[in-house]
Amino acid sequence: MNEKEKTKKTRQSASATPAKKPAVRKQSARKNPPKNDNIPETPAKRRSKAVKEVKKAPVRIIPLGGLNEIGKNMTVFECSNDMFILDCGLAFPDADMPGVDIVIPDFTYVERNRDKIRGVVITHGHEDHIGGLAYLLKKINVPVYATRLTIGLIEGKLREQGLYGKVQLNVVEPKKTVKMGCMAVEFIKVNHSIPDSVGMAIHTPAGIIVHTGDFKVDYSPIDGKIIDLARFGELGSRGVLALMADSTNAERPGYTHSERTVGESFDKLFQKGEGKRIIIATFSSNIHRVQQIINCAVRYGRKVAVFGRSMINVINTAIELGYLDVPDGIIIDIEMMNRYESERIVLITTGSQGEPMSALTRMAMNDHKKVNITPMDFIIISATPIPGNEKYVTRVVNELMKSGAEVVYEAMYEVHVSGHACQEELKLMLALTKPKFFIPVHGEYKHLKKHAGLALQMGIPKENVMIAAIGNVIETDGTKMSVTSQVPAGRVLVDGLGVGDVGSIVLRDRKHLAQDGLIIIVIGIERSSNEVVAGPDIISRGFVYVRESEELMVEAKQLLAETLDNCSAAELREWNTLKGKLRDALSDYIYQKTKRSPMILPIIMET
Amino acid sequence: MNEKEKTKKTRQSASATPAKKPAVRKQSARKNPPKNDNIPETPAKRRSKAVKEVKKAPVRIIPLGGLNEIGKNMTVFECSNDMFILDCGLAFPDADMPGVDIVIPDFTYVERNRDKIRGVVITHGHEDHIGGLAYLLKKINVPVYATRLTIGLIEGKLREQGLYGKVQLNVVEPKKTVKMGCMAVEFIKVNHSIPDSVGMAIHTPAGIIVHTGDFKVDYSPIDGKIIDLARFGELGSRGVLALMADSTNAERPGYTHSERTVGESFDKLFQKGEGKRIIIATFSSNIHRVQQIINCAVRYGRKVAVFGRSMINVINTAIELGYLDVPDGIIIDIEMMNRYESERIVLITTGSQGEPMSALTRMAMNDHKKVNITPMDFIIISATPIPGNEKYVTRVVNELMKSGAEVVYEAMYEVHVSGHACQEELKLMLALTKPKFFIPVHGEYKHLKKHAGLALQMGIPKENVMIAAIGNVIETDGTKMSVTSQVPAGRVLVDGLGVGDVGSIVLRDRKHLAQDGLIIIVIGIERSSNEVVAGPDIISRGFVYVRESEELMVEAKQLLAETLDNCSAAELREWNTLKGKLRDALSDYIYQKTKRSPMILPIIMET
Repeated sequence: MNEKEKTKKTRQSASATPAKKPAVRKQSARKNPPKNDNIPETPAKRRSKAVKEVKKAPVRIIPLGGLNEIGKNMTVFECSNDMFILDCGLAFPDADMPGVDIVIPDFTYVERNRDKIRGVVITHGHEDHIGGLAYLLKKINVPVYATRLTIGLIEGKLREQGLYGKVQLNVVEPKKTVKMGCMAVEFIKVNHSIPDSVGMAIHTPAGIIVHTGDFKVDYSPIDGKIIDLARFGELGSRGVLALMADSTNAERPGYTHSERTVGESFDKLFQKGEGKRIIIATFSSNIHRVQQIINCAVRYGRKVAVFGRSMINVINTAIELGYLDVPDGIIIDIEMMNRYESERIVLITTGSQGEPMSALTRMAMNDHKKVNITPMDFIIISATPIPGNEKYVTRVVNELMKSGAEVVYEAMYEVHVSGHACQEELKLMLALTKPKFFIPVHGEYKHLKKHAGLALQMGIPKENVMIAAIGNVIETDGTKMSVTSQVPAGRVLVDGLGVGDVGSIVLRDRKHLAQDGLIIIVIGIERSSNEVVAGPDIISRGFVYVRESEELMVEAKQLLAETLDNCSAAELREWNTLKGKLRDALSDYIYQKTKRSPMILPIIMET
Repeated sequence: MNEKEKTKKTRQSASATPAKKPAVRKQSARKNPPKNDNIPETPAKRRSKAVKEVKKAPVRIIPLGGLNEIGKNMTVFECSNDMFILDCGLAFPDADMPGVDIVIPDFTYVERNRDKIRGVVITHGHEDHIGGLAYLLKKINVPVYATRLTIGLIEGKLREQGLYGKVQLNVVEPKKTVKMGCMAVEFIKVNHSIPDSVGMAIHTPAGIIVHTGDFKVDYSPIDGKIIDLARFGELGSRGVLALMADSTNAERPGYTHSERTVGESFDKLFQKGEGKRIIIATFSSNIHRVQQIINCAVRYGRKVAVFGRSMINVINTAIELGYLDVPDGIIIDIEMMNRYESERIVLITTGSQGEPMSALTRMAMNDHKKVNITPMDFIIISATPIPGNEKYVTRVVNELMKSGAEVVYEAMYEVHVSGHACQEELKLMLALTKPKFFIPVHGEYKHLKKHAGLALQMGIPKENVMIAAIGNVIETDGTKMSVTSQVPAGRVLVDGLGVGDVGSIVLRDRKHLAQDGLIIIVIGIERSSNEVVAGPDIISRGFVYVRESEELMVEAKQLLAETLDNCSAAELREWNTLKGKLRDALSDYIYQKTKRSPMILPIIMET
């Protein structure tokens, strides 16, 4: 295909469904749907012959994040010359990535195919689904499609990154479809711990692929909008080629409780906390949780003050877009708090994960300008610690209790429910969609494995269940599915403004420095004579408390001086050899004396 | 008191009860017990008048570890001129102590009072109760008293530290008493996750203080020895002045299950794992767990191979001392494994916490010389992750599963029970001992607070329940109890051979280095002329991948050169000012370009 054709094709195929356009079902009824039972709804506006040609083209599914890991969810769907991306999230760094702020997927493959990318569809507004988007859009500027609240949250992110106004953002309502070249993506309402979450039905020439996004089944959601089970069932009846489903809670039997049960607990706890100031920490994005706190505040005659930057941002966005119902005068400015008796106030705050810089942590550490914790505080941590955060949360609980506050943090009251489907819900999704192939997604290996086990129990043949890995190219023509090749995939570390400039060598050095610190050896050598004219001097950081280890440092210096004395003139000319000699001598001595291995950096100054 | 008297007193009062000496009850029956109901059993061999004098002396309890923290349990008991130490444990470092191997208590107070210390009594052989002992004994060489297995485990530690044979180790059986000057310590059998655990009744002139050590109530322990509830009850009937009890599980309602339930699970799992090699990871010190594995191996006709240094050491000690019953030929050498079919083998291994260097982790990472994990492995992780280790354990589980092995790690089979008492057992201990004062010990603040709440529920008056902190001097004369002063207490960090030479400054530097790495600025200045004769040069580590950031580094060097050019002759003489100037200039530039703050070290060489 020549350059002109390519441009034309790109323009044609990247077309968003306008807001008021009828849902996909009507479209396909109008548009001569292909006869094949597996792909009844392909909405491609093509003549019959063209459709048949495209039908032969296999579909490729390429997960670039979210498999064998928690976070940075991202999947590429590809057919003929068209590609689109589903979600583009971040992951939080592990303990073995010191100094790293966030982790994003490797975009190499999509950058290489930038001309084929028709857009990005986003399932919901959590960081592990939108947090990498700004970094992606800086590389390839493609339209973004998501529900209204999700777009609102993405806007905030783009503003922070100076991208606002430079990217085409499209609001798509559930039941609507977005065309991505020869594929079409239908948005389907699901329940999750943030409003406006959707799963996707991807209509391709090879068949329908259902991707649940993050989901749970909530029969009594706060906004009254139950997951669109009927649509998943309908798709199942017509024939789903593959299901990709959220595995986060695949290890947990039973059902995830309704968000509404948390509201019932809050109600009891507001009674229990009568006469005290109530402080509730939760995830800022859990707008339904915030709604229930506000409802309780209204019911018990309290005003609400909001703490934490992300909480303030999300609540503002949610109010603007109509996702929070807040009676006038209920939310008060932090500065106005003192005008009310503290038993007439509820604080909503970030910090439910014990994050060191969060508002709740600063309150616990007596380090918050506006809030001083006392025995007259009744504190609810409405969250469970994400693995890795347990110790942070515990520290915050201990400190809050030391100030005499009552702290509710256990499962004794149901102050938190998960946003993810447990085993019975996962089975329900499998039962409704009846997929030919099953690919568990969003989870570590143990979650994927467990979820795969559920699919086997439901009768899906073993050869049709695929535990994949990021970078796998999963190809299907509607009959078979297999991994046909591999594309670059992995993690890109973001540290400050640097994206990808912290790699394995930098991390290795950071970990080495953290472990035993650093000793710098400095000597000056005269250029012409190769004579040592300064040093050896020693400077250390993070190794020992030097004032108490003077003897060690003096001896180390003597050792280096002797090593230099024993060097031949030739050795003094060969600086790399010389550095190695000094490093080895000092390293052996230090290890023998301390059993530590600091990083040793010999520096030779030429004068 | 003059020096001579002191020496005499020390000699007299540090006398161990010989192994065959009758238990304390007989002693006190023989020895004119004081009439006061609170202190019926004081076994001091003194004339009536002397006893009365001593009685007036208050007892001081000084926790030096284990309160508001998990680990490094250590308490000093003090009366008149006599002191002894109960337990001397270590704690494992937090994430904010990079490079630190272990944490031990601050021994300042006991060192200052070395002449008064009559000995150390140890409740059981876990690291958090004996791990600091070798460090203590290097400072003050005093006799150690413990049960047989505990002494066996301590011997191993002393050997490692070159102290074996230099310290007096005394085996004390439960029900026996050790005299510590005017106090006497009675050993009382308890159940815990290591055999030969005891609590202590400390008979003092002010009354009896009961310290439970770590305990649970197991009505069907593997060695048949149930916690000596009768003795705790007897002491309660006579009057217990204060109870100090294990708070580890104070948040958990109900009872801790019997160790025997784990054996029942193993039995089922050995059937489930038929035809496969079975690998079980557990805590090396849990000898009863190991016994149950061996019993199953015998029952199902398997041989046992043992992996991991600590597992091998503990099993050898336990066999030697008769704590493990191993039929001949059941345990085989690792080298002999290949002679048996793998379905006829059980491996017992360390690594149940996912420790990076442990045998199980190396197996999971395909990095073990002798064991290669395959789908023919059935693996049981018989432990729950200690807070902070969750991610390590999860990683090991994922990797084992990726090799196709079946991994049992959940609560679906009861493959682990706690060694600590839950709420109903804690109440039982309170009910038996009926203490006047209650001091919850061994736990973070939230555990102590919860345990204190149980005591209040049991009717102990609020003013008699004390949540203390390490370093508190808790004084009681038998009537009142209060914190009267404070002694030095805290944490001493051990890194390699260094004890205490890593302090807050070194840790701060390590964390800074880990966060953003390091930039070194080197310049050479000629002594007489104050002229820059070399540099500025820049060396970085852990900051950016230099090859991909050449521009940044070149610009940084230019900036430094300009800064130097703009320096007056006076500034070039004032090296501290000059260093500050260079540091500030580079720091601002780097932050502006990267939003990172590496440590910046200007080094000026004088030539």
